Amino acid sequence: MNLFEKHEALLKKAMDALHARTFFAAFPEHPAPAIYGETADADGQAHFKNQLGKKFEELKQTHTTGWGGQEESPYTQEPLSVLYPMASVDTLISNATKAFHTWRKVAANERAGILLESLERMKKRFFEIAYATMHTTGQGFMMAFQASGPHAADRALEAVAAGYEELNRFPAHALWDKPMGKFNIQLNKQWQAVPKGISVVIGCSTFPTWNSVTGIYGSLITGNPVIVKPHPGAILPIAIFVAEIQKVLAENNLDPNTCQLAVDTFDKMITHQLAEHPSVKLIDYTGNAAFGSYLEALPGKTVFTEKTGVNSVIIDSVDDADKAAANLAFSVNLYSGQMCTAPQNFFIPAAGIQSPNGKISFDDFAQKFAGQISSLVDNPKAGPFVLGAIQNKKTKERTTEAEKLPGKLILKSRTLENPFFKNARTATPVVVEITADKKDIFGKELFGPIALLIKTQNTDESILLAQEMAWKHGAISCAAYTTDPSVKEKIADAMALATTPVSFNLTGGIYMNQNAAFSDFHVTGGNPAGNASFTNPEYVAKRFTWVGHREPVKQNG
Amino acid sequence: MNLFEKHEALLKKAMDALHARTFFAAFPEHPAPAIYGETADADGQAHFKNQLGKKFEELKQTHTTGWGGQEESPYTQEPLSVLYPMASVDTLISNATKAFHTWRKVAANERAGILLESLERMKKRFFEIAYATMHTTGQGFMMAFQASGPHAADRALEAVAAGYEELNRFPAHALWDKPMGKFNIQLNKQWQAVPKGISVVIGCSTFPTWNSVTGIYGSLITGNPVIVKPHPGAILPIAIFVAEIQKVLAENNLDPNTCQLAVDTFDKMITHQLAEHPSVKLIDYTGNAAFGSYLEALPGKTVFTEKTGVNSVIIDSVDDADKAAANLAFSVNLYSGQMCTAPQNFFIPAAGIQSPNGKISFDDFAQKFAGQISSLVDNPKAGPFVLGAIQNKKTKERTTEAEKLPGKLILKSRTLENPFFKNARTATPVVVEITADKKDIFGKELFGPIALLIKTQNTDESILLAQEMAWKHGAISCAAYTTDPSVKEKIADAMALATTPVSFNLTGGIYMNQNAAFSDFHVTGGNPAGNASFTNPEYVAKRFTWVGHREPVKQNG
Repeated sequence: MNLFEKHEALLKKAMDALHARTFFAAFPEHPAPAIYGETADADGQAHFKNQLGKKFEELKQTHTTGWGGQEESPYTQEPLSVLYPMASVDTLISNATKAFHTWRKVAANERAGILLESLERMKKRFFEIAYATMHTTGQGFMMAFQASGPHAADRALEAVAAGYEELNRFPAHALWDKPMGKFNIQLNKQWQAVPKGISVVIGCSTFPTWNSVTGIYGSLITGNPVIVKPHPGAILPIAIFVAEIQKVLAENNLDPNTCQLAVDTFDKMITHQLAEHPSVKLIDYTGNAAFGSYLEALPGKTVFTEKTGVNSVIIDSVDDADKAAANLAFSVNLYSGQMCTAPQNFFIPAAGIQSPNGKISFDDFAQKFAGQISSLVDNPKAGPFVLGAIQNKKTKERTTEAEKLPGKLILKSRTLENPFFKNARTATPVVVEITADKKDIFGKELFGPIALLIKTQNTDESILLAQEMAWKHGAISCAAYTTDPSVKEKIADAMALATTPVSFNLTGGIYMNQNAAFSDFHVTGGNPAGNASFTNPEYVAKRFTWVGHREPVKQNG
Repeated sequence: MNLFEKHEALLKKAMDALHARTFFAAFPEHPAPAIYGETADADGQAHFKNQLGKKFEELKQTHTTGWGGQEESPYTQEPLSVLYPMASVDTLISNATKAFHTWRKVAANERAGILLESLERMKKRFFEIAYATMHTTGQGFMMAFQASGPHAADRALEAVAAGYEELNRFPAHALWDKPMGKFNIQLNKQWQAVPKGISVVIGCSTFPTWNSVTGIYGSLITGNPVIVKPHPGAILPIAIFVAEIQKVLAENNLDPNTCQLAVDTFDKMITHQLAEHPSVKLIDYTGNAAFGSYLEALPGKTVFTEKTGVNSVIIDSVDDADKAAANLAFSVNLYSGQMCTAPQNFFIPAAGIQSPNGKISFDDFAQKFAGQISSLVDNPKAGPFVLGAIQNKKTKERTTEAEKLPGKLILKSRTLENPFFKNARTATPVVVEITADKKDIFGKELFGPIALLIKTQNTDESILLAQEMAWKHGAISCAAYTTDPSVKEKIADAMALATTPVSFNLTGGIYMNQNAAFSDFHVTGGNPAGNASFTNPEYVAKRFTWVGHREPVKQNG
């Protein structure tokens, strides 16, 4: 049985799931011993610890020269001292160019088999990837496991399924038989999906696998060689993915340089040089808006970006104010607000919000919200693990400085002791009340655990501001609370026009930050938060070009 | 029966045809009385003549101020003196903005019904459109009828079918039901295809309907209002299309401003102003490379271009040199080389080409080719009608100047008398032999009836040059003649990498210039000849954004 046959049933399930958009997950998100094995956690942790201070020798890519790596754990604030093989941009490109001419000729079935096999292998390394993610991003263990392991693998599978569907959208051959009256003109036609060329996937420091694998697998399934350029602060999780892909390639007598890791260091970044190389045709990027916009404007490249967004919460009326406040507090606490889907701007009418128990004033809701944040933060069994650590010193500084924003400080940020990592870089959320005219303050992304409660004249103003923020500055998520169907319709329409998905009236164990493969499109691609979407047809179709050749049918006799 | 039900069977046929890519045509291409009616030709011509020197009063768009129009017939070199209602860019935008908020809420079914109804109505005006096309573009009657009438309508139908398919790619609603162990999280989710906004379709002077209707119908089916900005030299054919669309809109109580005609004059073009308007989100363009590249670089717009190309013919070996030469000669003569798919560069090995009758020298093939051109030109029953007239004075000048190119003049261009239009602007093809090192000469589009025979060392050099031209300067079509399967494979692969479709070994009544809806993708979008393709999934999917909202299922009790 070849790899395609081995994984065909899963691929078909994934293709069906893409269209059904109901719940589907191929990789269990719970790190339970019953699922992943009794020793999986301990083994994974041991593997991770054993890698520290050593060379990462699993990669099979060629022509590397020297070793480098500057990762540091936000939990220990110590270097990981993992060293990765490095290569010049010219070497990476020449390796990729060579691999291109083999990989592009590998049939889509075979590519799919290899990629799905690599994901199945990855399953055995989810715990190791989780610890690597914790100690590069600062995520708590549970998020690190889920986001970098099963959820990332599901997103990768989704990209393979979407790509496979597009590659099979049109026939490889057809007879074109045109009646001309006395005779027919007959042409044999054939179509091929021609891959665009070298793909560079530029990773971010907070979600080193989740935000990169869709681009990697999306480019690979469509026949393009990939150069993975991780953030210099978060290499190890994606290095493990690349190593597993290279192993499966090599086992199948294919060039491991089809998917290369391009490590650089903070003092000598190679991203510009890679992106601008004329042979690079595809670029996937997650990160700040300025660099993303620079990439989008590069001529002759197909660029997929996820940049920054200003996510809004519109609070009009609630069924249960405490449950709403608790849900939103969790969204702000989760990974200390370092998710691209975390809320920042909370638009609340000055006159307060309706509830079945009467009107709740702005101040009362602000206190409920701050109270729910603190209650989670102060719960020693939950707080440190939900909040995790702060990836970047600048995020910590930004959070502290937010106290000085021109408004009313509702909740101060403070450090939070982690029982396992005394030296963890932490910051609990800061909550500031500001007025609706301070667009210069709330009209930009304040990355980190920073929540702004913005006092509006009424819900109509809240909606207009949320829409304006999404249009002008981008938005990836939005939450809204309303018990009024006409207000709901108004919010749904206004935010749809700003191409921002809205989560209505969330309470309980589901949060606006969360985003499910095969169901939720991640980033719509329609507003300045990014030009691409996981995983719509465009996301994969733009990675290749349909080309059709034709020739008259030979007449016999 | 509503309009959707009326046209549903045709829409389904068109959607199937898109995937089968075998021969399909909804609109008969032959202007036969048996098909279109005994008086259709005479009636169409009368309608056209009756319009000359008058205001075009069929449009239902509002807030126009004044009349203008500067079209001139390449057959008479006299003004048509048709005047069109004009409006300021601000008025066009404000009309379109208002229409947007109605049109975007019209169901996809209903939009499809309206658009297909407009195409059915157009059928009755194909002859009138044909005469309008002749007398703006210079096309011969047969091409004017086919390209602007049935072939354009088929391309429009194709865009509607492709758009309708994309709009229905994902469900409008789904229940997301995630097992969490003790309970399930249930979300009601809904998705909508949110149109991007105002669409501007910029026409060209040579194919005023064929090159514009895919953008118009592609934007309309996906919910965007359209502003059609024709070339000031070729308005009438597309004005008739817009008028028919507006009539169907108005009959169905929809805003006729959903599709507006934006006429300008040579002395005061509004294209820049329209394209740069912040409310314009989609731009379709056919025309020169410089303006196309300027449009592609406009930030915040989704732009679809067809620019210029340098189309190659690779001649390696032939079954029948005379038939090959005749086929290529026709391609050069057809509409005097003013097609974006016409060949320009003929790469022929210095040592000549193999044939079953022995080697044919370079010079012999050049003479055969020139002879076939002249023989068609000099056939009074065919020449004037195949060649038509030259749309633009500059094209005529360029053709004359080509005689002075640094090479050997094989065939001079001359004027050709048209029996019906003594004053027609004509130019027969010029053929020049040049050496393969003159990339500065053949490495750019020489629009018009200009054929360059380029003497190469061998077929390998021919292939490399054809590939380089496509990569660097763009290519929309390519022809190749070879009887050797390995050479064929090499050409197929090299040109596929340059994303250029190849027509192999064409002889008889099918030409490299021709391009069939529902089968041939027109322009691949992968090389500098343009970034879009009629009609791949991207072409319509990029005109809207998928947005999904979600809300927990209400728990009972």
